Amino acid sequence: MKLYFVTSNDNKLREAEQILEKKIEKIDLDIDEIQTVDVEEVVKDKAHKAYDVVKKPVFVEDTGLYFTGMKGFPGALIKWLLQSVGTKGICKVVDGFERKAVAKASICLYDGKKYNIFTGEVKGSITENPKGSSNFGWDPVFQPKGYDKTFAEMPAEKKNKISHRKLAFMKMKEFLDKIKK
Amino acid sequence: MKLYFVTSNDNKLREAEQILEKKIEKIDLDIDEIQTVDVEEVVKDKAHKAYDVVKKPVFVEDTGLYFTGMKGFPGALIKWLLQSVGTKGICKVVDGFERKAVAKASICLYDGKKYNIFTGEVKGSITENPKGSSNFGWDPVFQPKGYDKTFAEMPAEKKNKISHRKLAFMKMKEFLDKIKK
Repeated sequence: MKLYFVTSNDNKLREAEQILEKKIEKIDLDIDEIQTVDVEEVVKDKAHKAYDVVKKPVFVEDTGLYFTGMKGFPGALIKWLLQSVGTKGICKVVDGFERKAVAKASICLYDGKKYNIFTGEVKGSITENPKGSSNFGWDPVFQPKGYDKTFAEMPAEKKNKISHRKLAFMKMKEFLDKIKK
Repeated sequence: MKLYFVTSNDNKLREAEQILEKKIEKIDLDIDEIQTVDVEEVVKDKAHKAYDVVKKPVFVEDTGLYFTGMKGFPGALIKWLLQSVGTKGICKVVDGFERKAVAKASICLYDGKKYNIFTGEVKGSITENPKGSSNFGWDPVFQPKGYDKTFAEMPAEKKNKISHRKLAFMKMKEFLDKIKK
């Protein structure tokens, strides 16, 4: 089964191919995301819309950062918060709230019939200040539980071994291995 | 020209009829909103989708709250922040940032050909604590400039005279009056 990954990000494509151990076709489609904090809802809707264009088995991925002290806000909306206030601002927004957070990645694979959703979660906390020089998204403010470094302070290879996205792709691989049998 | 207002809110319908001085048809459609901080983008997209269903001139309205100190965040996404942390939480989120804010309402009228967007804005600030007993949305945290009361502390009639939505509907009325001539 040939799979189409709707993304504009070559790093994510490479990561998908490495973990899934197969060649993936990248498709760069501009699809509006629906307004919700829930990444699973976002990817389900997006996979559906992508399938309507591609008419072949597609998958999409989205990531969210859920602040425990804010009952999960902003989740999938983290990109807008980051874009507005930056990593320093994110730390400040959480001031006065519990600093625990959950990083979540969801992948939805849709073949026109069934939505298969794979979600990976990493527990952690929002640091008081951004740490680490990686410029990738909110990595400098998220410190996974059990580590004394933020995602941005870890070498990419290390982060990619324990990340929420890695966990989501691992679940997808399990699923694909099963249906191959 | 008969107009269809896509809303589930009878109060908004009454307000529209009063200001526009005409009978409006209400249509309750469940349409996903796109993910953006910009209310104008939200209503444009929503009016388009509503027109695809109704096939008659439709208008939709959306409201946003733009925190100046957070470069406009959350704007149209305020409903998710409110739902997660409540009015008290909104006040706390703004702690550490400049408290100025802009309340914005946008209406998009779409007839299948042209998008007409009417936006009303009210400048003000986010209070340190919610004030007033109105349970309507974020009214208890927004104090318009030049007043010593939040929207929630004002009688409904007074708020409705100076609100962002009122200003947007007034612009729409001007437009409708012009094309009638």
